[in-house]
Amino acid sequence: ALSLAGIASAQMKPEDAIKNRQSGYTFMAWNMGKIKAQVVDGTTPYNKDQVVAAANVIAATANSGMGALYLPGTDKGKGWKDTRLKAEFFKEQEEVGKIAKNFIEQANTLQKVAMTGDQAAIKAQFGEMGKACKACHDKYRVEE
Amino acid sequence: ALSLAGIASAQMKPEDAIKNRQSGYTFMAWNMGKIKAQVVDGTTPYNKDQVVAAANVIAATANSGMGALYLPGTDKGKGWKDTRLKAEFFKEQEEVGKIAKNFIEQANTLQKVAMTGDQAAIKAQFGEMGKACKACHDKYRVEE
Ligand code: HEC
Ligand code: HEC
Repeated sequence: ALSLAGIASAQMKPEDAIKNRQSGYTFMAWNMGKIKAQVVDGTTPYNKDQVVAAANVIAATANSGMGALYLPGTDKGKGWKDTRLKAEFFKEQEEVGKIAKNFIEQANTLQKVAMTGDQAAIKAQFGEMGKACKACHDKYRVEE
Repeated sequence: ALSLAGIASAQMKPEDAIKNRQSGYTFMAWNMGKIKAQVVDGTTPYNKDQVVAAANVIAATANSGMGALYLPGTDKGKGWKDTRLKAEFFKEQEEVGKIAKNFIEQANTLQKVAMTGDQAAIKAQFGEMGKACKACHDKYRVEE
């Protein structure tokens, strides 16, 4: 879940916390895109190793304790650019916890399913993964 | 090694390629920082699960085919900010390949060593990992 990973993170500058989370999500999105191209859109030939590698990035990122990057007050401020985090994030801890838990579970499942090489199952789980991302964005990320 | 991951990546916009690599490296650096705080500096109490999770991010990122983000011409241009990639990167493919291969090997080793929970060994391998990052930066990343 969204655990606060302790002192080192508490000492992090707000702008670095925002930059790190913008980076983590952006890099995950690149990896989601590779899976999409190979098992959903078919615009790139399916390559099991590449899909496993992409799923590993998503699972490792989901399990990396990104909650530590949500320092109080960082619904304002600039990392690579102005943060898109909504203030609601800090007021709805229970709901955030549920969304984060589901995100981690879906990412762990995607990693397992990727290793089976079953493209139909990967496609289905990719859909669940996307929903887990969207659940958070719908509530806690500012529209652009 | 630095493999070009195919059509989907070739279609990527240069600014997205730069943004994605800046994101991947930045997120790795956050995870390197967590390992450093716990096993090198001792500013945060050692927590095996957190160190393993951080090492998983670094290994997954190293194995994600970041070579595909080095589109020709992207030694110029802007992702989150102006790229720091030197033009030499595209002229010294053999050397780049060696550095990238070592980077992946050190990341895989760091992941294995993290799982042993042997702090002295993790500290030593963290040093090797840092050297693998620096080898690339010294040659191919513009000083700031
Ligand atoms: C627990 C909440 C949460 C989850 C889960 C989540 N995101 Fe996000 N995402 C955010 C927030 C909040 C931001 C804005 C971060 C900021 O600007 O500080 C964001 C930003 C992003 C961005 C950067 C957009 C920009 O403005 O450049 C991308 C891309 C992204 N997310 C993709 C994903 C993908 C893909 C997943 C799932 C694999 C995912 N996110 C899961 C909350 C989440
Ligand atoms: C194969 C080459 C290579 C390896 C290996 C590498 N880097 Fe880098 N790194 C770069 C390049 C090139 C850039 C500049 C990217 C850009 O701006 O387009 C960069 C950028 C960065 C940045 C962003 C700096 C900024 O300008 O904001 C950080 C942080 C970073 N690297 C850390 C690391 C860490 C930590 C590792 C190892 C765990 C690592 N890098 C491994 C080549 C490498």
